[in-house]
Amino acid sequence: MVLGAAESPVLSFDVGGTDIKAGLVDAKGVVLGMRRVPTPLDPARPGEAVVERLAELAAELAAEFPGTPAKAAGIIVPGIVDSVAGVGVYSANLGWRNFPFTAEAQKRLGIPVAFDHDVRSAAAVEHALGGSREFSDVVVMVVGTGIAAAVFSGGKAVTAGGFAGELGHAQVPDPDAGPGGTAATILEAVGSAGAIAKRYQRISGNKVNGARSVLLRATSGDALAERVWAEAMDALAFTICQCVNIIGTEAVVIGGGLAEAGEDLLQPLRARVEQTLDFQRRPHLIRAQLGQDAGLLGAALNARALLGGGQ
Amino acid sequence: MVLGAAESPVLSFDVGGTDIKAGLVDAKGVVLGMRRVPTPLDPARPGEAVVERLAELAAELAAEFPGTPAKAAGIIVPGIVDSVAGVGVYSANLGWRNFPFTAEAQKRLGIPVAFDHDVRSAAAVEHALGGSREFSDVVVMVVGTGIAAAVFSGGKAVTAGGFAGELGHAQVPDPDAGPGGTAATILEAVGSAGAIAKRYQRISGNKVNGARSVLLRATSGDALAERVWAEAMDALAFTICQCVNIIGTEAVVIGGGLAEAGEDLLQPLRARVEQTLDFQRRPHLIRAQLGQDAGLLGAALNARALLGGGQ
Repeated sequence: MVLGAAESPVLSFDVGGTDIKAGLVDAKGVVLGMRRVPTPLDPARPGEAVVERLAELAAELAAEFPGTPAKAAGIIVPGIVDSVAGVGVYSANLGWRNFPFTAEAQKRLGIPVAFDHDVRSAAAVEHALGGSREFSDVVVMVVGTGIAAAVFSGGKAVTAGGFAGELGHAQVPDPDAGPGGTAATILEAVGSAGAIAKRYQRISGNKVNGARSVLLRATSGDALAERVWAEAMDALAFTICQCVNIIGTEAVVIGGGLAEAGEDLLQPLRARVEQTLDFQRRPHLIRAQLGQDAGLLGAALNARALLGGGQ
Repeated sequence: MVLGAAESPVLSFDVGGTDIKAGLVDAKGVVLGMRRVPTPLDPARPGEAVVERLAELAAELAAEFPGTPAKAAGIIVPGIVDSVAGVGVYSANLGWRNFPFTAEAQKRLGIPVAFDHDVRSAAAVEHALGGSREFSDVVVMVVGTGIAAAVFSGGKAVTAGGFAGELGHAQVPDPDAGPGGTAATILEAVGSAGAIAKRYQRISGNKVNGARSVLLRATSGDALAERVWAEAMDALAFTICQCVNIIGTEAVVIGGGLAEAGEDLLQPLRARVEQTLDFQRRPHLIRAQLGQDAGLLGAALNARALLGGGQ
């Protein structure tokens, strides 16, 4: 049986700071042959090294599933991404500047490639299927080691040439500032899971295994852990309120590692947002529903869009 | 000669906190019979009182220009505006909540009415004709007694049911906070022309005639005036950087009374934005080109859109 293109699986690659996840994703969104390999870091040719690894993964998947050749591929990466031009504009962690991912990957893979931003692509799936689907003005934040976000306005993704959604780098009041009042830092340095662990270790001198440990200590009465957690909540709520005031955000979906804290995260955020806002919209704060595979599904959705319907 | 609707003048009303400006605006954007009357303030029926005043103004204009009856009217107001529903959701200064402006004004005026937000409508004209017209991701800020803004993303106005663009109420670090670091206030309380005058008077004990006097004192070596001006620039730059990080803003147009400071405003803002941002877009900071009539032109453009082309 020969499958039409619309029913064919697509190749899906989620290139992260540590790992690349790869798989074939069928028309129902089922991931086949999922694998995870370290992201190659080659400072001299960072983009080329990644594309070469993707070609190896594609060959492996083709060998494993010989009957169902992929007719398109989706690649998602972090950083600043110009999806229209198919260019990885900038990645602080992975090192490229203006690398033409779409062109290079199409050359290597021999099929059409959809190239886009990791969080925006995962967020589009989350927004389509998750708790925010009834809302038009939505921010999806992924709070893990760092903080990335996708912004939707009037139901559409705000891209701004790849420069939108840099919530992790938005300024917040600096809780470590000395007397004087107006010193600022960035959200990622206070409100991320990574920052919560780091700040607690620095302030307390105690070694902890991630933000989850800090939360456990906070709920067991460790005053320094309580303070670090509360300051993270202050910073996250501060940035959420900025979104509400600037673009009238009506729902904020929070995913990533920190979202595992559930109501220990959402409840203090809701209280702070409520206290800060006046006549403005009160955004719904919602936990992301899709897990680790949202990126692969997002990349697959981008790839499938290249194929159109029917054939 | 009978004019087709597209060539007919339209009625245009710019309802402000102090005055209503009214006029007929012809197809070339020329304002005829411009008049300015105090905005009626009736706490018991704030919306009704305004619509009654608009009907009186319409009658005066019809009497003054009997040969060219208006075939549509544009009304713009401040506050939270739901232009799709035609409702003035909330105005702190003028007192209404959920007043159905479009329906009530159509009843009184007997012609189709386009109802929208004052700053968004003026900003649409500024964005179409002014220095930001080459950009897609733009914020137009009107900095006067208060601060209002219109947000454009991908070339389109971001409305969010009327809740977007509340930059005046976005949080900024509070320069009057005592030791401790993270106290916040709102942009309007530090960065508006009104706040600059008020804060200087409070801190120095000297009476001044507006923000312009504070700037004059600052440039003449008055250290307190310098400080208040600098703190206003800090706050405005803080909010501009929030826009850049959240929605990738590439141009910020500044109008309103404070924009009369020209480079004394733009140069310190540019320096602060440059210092704060890292890999992000550097937004162009541009002075608004249209003057006091931008609101009337915006309301007229909204009204003309109701008429369509040709007839």
